Amino acid sequence: MTTQVRAAIVGSTGYGGVELIRFLLNHPQVIITSVISSSSAGAPISEGFPHLNAIMQESLDAVDIPLIAAKADVVFLATPAGVAAKLAPDMLEAGLKVIDLSGDFRLKTPELYTQWYKREGAPQEDLDKAVFGLCEVYGDQVQGVDFISNPGCYPTATLLGLVPAVKAGWIDPSTIIVDAKSGVSGGGRGLSLGAHYAEANENLSAYKLNRHQHIPEIEQVLSDAAGKPVTMTFSTHLVPMTRGIMATCYAQLSGAHDTQAFIDLYRQYYEGRKFVRIREQGKLPATKEVWGSNYCDIGFAVDERTNRVTVISVIDNVVKGAAGQAIQNLNLMMGWDETAGLNFTPVYP
Amino acid sequence: MTTQVRAAIVGSTGYGGVELIRFLLNHPQVIITSVISSSSAGAPISEGFPHLNAIMQESLDAVDIPLIAAKADVVFLATPAGVAAKLAPDMLEAGLKVIDLSGDFRLKTPELYTQWYKREGAPQEDLDKAVFGLCEVYGDQVQGVDFISNPGCYPTATLLGLVPAVKAGWIDPSTIIVDAKSGVSGGGRGLSLGAHYAEANENLSAYKLNRHQHIPEIEQVLSDAAGKPVTMTFSTHLVPMTRGIMATCYAQLSGAHDTQAFIDLYRQYYEGRKFVRIREQGKLPATKEVWGSNYCDIGFAVDERTNRVTVISVIDNVVKGAAGQAIQNLNLMMGWDETAGLNFTPVYP
Amino acid sequence: MTTQVRAAIVGSTGYGGVELIRFLLNHPQVIITSVISSSSAGAPISEGFPHLNAIMQESLDAVDIPLIAAKADVVFLATPAGVAAKLAPDMLEAGLKVIDLSGDFRLKTPELYTQWYKREGAPQEDLDKAVFGLCEVYGDQVQGVDFISNPGCYPTATLLGLVPAVKAGWIDPSTIIVDAKSGVSGGGRGLSLGAHYAEANENLSAYKLNRHQHIPEIEQVLSDAAGKPVTMTFSTHLVPMTRGIMATCYAQLSGAHDTQAFIDLYRQYYEGRKFVRIREQGKLPATKEVWGSNYCDIGFAVDERTNRVTVISVIDNVVKGAAGQAIQNLNLMMGWDETAGLNFTPVYP
Amino acid sequence: MTTQVRAAIVGSTGYGGVELIRFLLNHPQVIITSVISSSSAGAPISEGFPHLNAIMQESLDAVDIPLIAAKADVVFLATPAGVAAKLAPDMLEAGLKVIDLSGDFRLKTPELYTQWYKREGAPQEDLDKAVFGLCEVYGDQVQGVDFISNPGCYPTATLLGLVPAVKAGWIDPSTIIVDAKSGVSGGGRGLSLGAHYAEANENLSAYKLNRHQHIPEIEQVLSDAAGKPVTMTFSTHLVPMTRGIMATCYAQLSGAHDTQAFIDLYRQYYEGRKFVRIREQGKLPATKEVWGSNYCDIGFAVDERTNRVTVISVIDNVVKGAAGQAIQNLNLMMGWDETAGLNFTPVYP
Repeated sequence: MTTQVRAAIVGSTGYGGVELIRFLLNHPQVIITSVISSSSAGAPISEGFPHLNAIMQESLDAVDIPLIAAKADVVFLATPAGVAAKLAPDMLEAGLKVIDLSGDFRLKTPELYTQWYKREGAPQEDLDKAVFGLCEVYGDQVQGVDFISNPGCYPTATLLGLVPAVKAGWIDPSTIIVDAKSGVSGGGRGLSLGAHYAEANENLSAYKLNRHQHIPEIEQVLSDAAGKPVTMTFSTHLVPMTRGIMATCYAQLSGAHDTQAFIDLYRQYYEGRKFVRIREQGKLPATKEVWGSNYCDIGFAVDERTNRVTVISVIDNVVKGAAGQAIQNLNLMMGWDETAGLNFTPVYP
Repeated sequence: MTTQVRAAIVGSTGYGGVELIRFLLNHPQVIITSVISSSSAGAPISEGFPHLNAIMQESLDAVDIPLIAAKADVVFLATPAGVAAKLAPDMLEAGLKVIDLSGDFRLKTPELYTQWYKREGAPQEDLDKAVFGLCEVYGDQVQGVDFISNPGCYPTATLLGLVPAVKAGWIDPSTIIVDAKSGVSGGGRGLSLGAHYAEANENLSAYKLNRHQHIPEIEQVLSDAAGKPVTMTFSTHLVPMTRGIMATCYAQLSGAHDTQAFIDLYRQYYEGRKFVRIREQGKLPATKEVWGSNYCDIGFAVDERTNRVTVISVIDNVVKGAAGQAIQNLNLMMGWDETAGLNFTPVYP
Repeated sequence: MTTQVRAAIVGSTGYGGVELIRFLLNHPQVIITSVISSSSAGAPISEGFPHLNAIMQESLDAVDIPLIAAKADVVFLATPAGVAAKLAPDMLEAGLKVIDLSGDFRLKTPELYTQWYKREGAPQEDLDKAVFGLCEVYGDQVQGVDFISNPGCYPTATLLGLVPAVKAGWIDPSTIIVDAKSGVSGGGRGLSLGAHYAEANENLSAYKLNRHQHIPEIEQVLSDAAGKPVTMTFSTHLVPMTRGIMATCYAQLSGAHDTQAFIDLYRQYYEGRKFVRIREQGKLPATKEVWGSNYCDIGFAVDERTNRVTVISVIDNVVKGAAGQAIQNLNLMMGWDETAGLNFTPVYP
Repeated sequence: MTTQVRAAIVGSTGYGGVELIRFLLNHPQVIITSVISSSSAGAPISEGFPHLNAIMQESLDAVDIPLIAAKADVVFLATPAGVAAKLAPDMLEAGLKVIDLSGDFRLKTPELYTQWYKREGAPQEDLDKAVFGLCEVYGDQVQGVDFISNPGCYPTATLLGLVPAVKAGWIDPSTIIVDAKSGVSGGGRGLSLGAHYAEANENLSAYKLNRHQHIPEIEQVLSDAAGKPVTMTFSTHLVPMTRGIMATCYAQLSGAHDTQAFIDLYRQYYEGRKFVRIREQGKLPATKEVWGSNYCDIGFAVDERTNRVTVISVIDNVVKGAAGQAIQNLNLMMGWDETAGLNFTPVYP
């Protein structure tokens, strides 16, 4: 019989944290032993999240590393920028496995982090310890490690949509333009005017053009796939819906490849990876078709008039873009079936 | 080891049908052996519902009772008004267990059905065979039967909110007024101007005041609970959201009972029933707190100024108001744990 | 030729203030001479409200009563609770006409205010000076006065839906139950978790049952109409839309009056009042049908089974429930056509 | 004193038609003398659009050209594809001025129309008579003509965002990629699964990639501006909101031009044109900031890393993208102030 892994969640009162809870409660090999919040320690988690009434009675713990190490084997960090950089090294030291959902360990150098996040980054030696857990691309590097940096929501959608084409040399990486759109939950539970209902509803806005902190994370992986430095144009838009990300990716073709060829290429690349679904010719995925699930659905349109391909990639930002992929990383790390605890059909309608 | 029950779903291309699929795929004792649609037979179900790509490859079967009887042990009817009345008797005859999600077998006489549904009803002898499966009220009558009529969405929310108080004699049944509100999915997948996005979005409307076909279904159960005929006022409103029903129920108090007394009464009545959650004093449930799940959450406010109680009862109309409760009925019918296949945490946010 | 009245708006950075600007810019006899905000003084108003770019270039003024009195003839107070109580007396003293959109002067005694608003109210002598400007009921009392207290959003919808029936003695006032629903803008521009997009979207919640501060305002007018004290049940719900209020009002009939009789009664009561539209038999108004306009639409359903009437009354909460009615009050106060500046067709879809 | 122009509206039961009514009712020099619908002739227009109750009592007329010519001076055609091609020539013959809001007369040859619209187009001689009324670009060609083809919604947003840069030679036209997003009302009032509330809500989808019928309309004007044939990539997305279009336009820079230079260039190009508003550096427009109005707001972000410019252009698809621009064209045609009847502040929130 399998021993269950004991999990702690830091940042349990954010959307990523509460979604980790939803999935881990369903995980056959994991038991949640501590839900942690620096701001609400002591209160029952169901007070701030009444949907957990009668499901999770636990009160929130404070951030106390020795205590966490005593209660848990693995810790998920669903914390704001800058927090994981401080916590993760000590947690690793205390013998915990760490899966960080923030951006603190995604970039390869502190300088790059500072440039895009406008704050001091984790030291180089700590960055070097983290494995970037884009499961369907770097999954084999994750197995057996202790420290995973979970990819961002935009990078996950974008990279799953672009890596196979870049790797195959079918598109010119210098021509990549990504027009990304996200639901409002991407901004978290912290209050802001942009997420105020009467402002966000019946509204569509663009933000952080060319300045989004996910840009270097994407370029890092694209450069790796291309074997040379890649710079791209990346735009983010706020869409009046709670969940969902769509990355509409444009690039100039290198060579003659039609839509069906792209479909075949991607199906081959993602063979055996349950959570990536490639649509057949003439069909494009919509965000609602992955809602609440860990799927990433991808569709293609090659245009002969312009010799460009458009790749549409959709995920649920809170699941495949955060909590779901984090659990998928745990599964890979532990050598389990990567779908354990994640076999949820998208909720429709 | 348990043998799995084989299930067929008629009406698989409606919202109730597709939600039955989502939950049954997760049910440890059930296997779906046929998904059936009279209108789309032959097509893969994922063609009309792309979220099922790579999850359910099956093509839709036609409605063929002998074939269904050969492939399945139990059949769910998620069909428009009038269809189940024709299919159910022959299906029972063919040895199938039947769970009907439509209104065809909910009312006790054909005359009552004709009066409210404005069409001919099933004959009395067929009506007499069906057990009304409001699980937390009539659950003990469901065990072991072959034919269940699954309650409507509005009746489920309303009755779970009112039955304990009526049964206890704490409210005057002649003063009951129910102001019910539903998300747009309650109208199904059939196109209509009222469900056209640009008309329903940023809009709130009332409809079928005093004429909704769920009224006699509610009054039937309230009369049963009161031990005398109950007539009530019932209003329905369309709210710009996909899922969710709230029944705001008003009644004059019989005797002095404060909010906490109501809470205690209901907690006692629903003791051991996992899917009804009674909120503590000062807390009222919101529809999002049960979204995607089989829960019914209930809260109370007694007003001393007016000597009235207000009961707020919320469900997800497609789950506890349709597919979820149907599966809960299957569980009770088979003598299984009533939560089998239904242990989903509400999706939040 | 008419001289234009000069208007100042205090609280120009709230939704009520900015809607006053939209309508007054269109008013033939009014010119806005000062937009005022205590929190953002000095900044251009279009900085916080970019939709006003190239339309209104003015910077926000601070609250300075002598300056306002020098620049304006009339001042609108669209301020949070407690502010108008302090400002209005001095403004009146300084010779300004004052129209207060807050609740500070709506209740007839300081004690009642303290009981419901949980704060100290304006002194009795100041309360006595204000005229309650529910235009279609008290319009004749408004003409020529200097100080108007503009009704609340819920009271406007509720009272226009109930006053004629109460006045005519057609319903029993002791049986009135009002189930009110509002769009999220009713909570203003101040940030709160309840108005956070990911929480409010796809959600329906009830709040402040029996405790809403608009209750005494409604009861005050109903008591006046009934000629005796009226106590009622009043519930408020938050609906996932930006604008719109619906009051669904229930009451026991006094005497035999069918739906058409109610329609006739109300058409007679509101004869000549353009902004109240009574729907014909079988039609019920929806909030979208008054969206962005100053209309209040009312429909009826009498139920012979229960001997009750249901009255549906809808308004745009920011217009007829705030800025629009305030301007209508200005028009009545000045002896102008009550529709001046308000002749906007609802925006549909 | 000015004589009023008499206007007829064919297609008064669509969203474009009803929005023409809203604006023309407010136009000082126009009187609506006939509202026409082939499908609902005889019924009062307020039956299908209750928001017009007490505002417009007229019944709908049938399509009868001699009658229209007798009652009106100008006719607006807000009709489905293919209808205007049949009606317009006879209407012109009958002495009417015609403003066509459909795509029937926007393309320069019948062949191009057939290629993109997949149906037979109007004959060349009729196409030659129509002037393409993109007001801020071709406004001077509109004055005094009898027949205007009103631009499409996507082309209006896109072209106002790109023409000045293309004309100035600041961007390489062969690199243009437009990622366009629209609210659901763009699909009209006709029912479809894609516009069914439960499918469109909380969903974001892409459609008609590289195949949208607005592509040749855009390329035609861009080619005109560039002085050489332009082919571009154009994608359309459906956003869960009722109104609003955003065109996010990408292009490679020709020469060194920073964001401020673009702002200056566009401000100069659109000088004196009230309905185009150029945002200052660091500010990007959102669709809500033009909601319900005839404005087109434009913002820029030049990226030195990639040497590309991103242009964000937003309109209300039903106003500047349809009815509003049609009236603006009438104003230009008649030699009136182009803002007559259109001086509406955007509705916010």
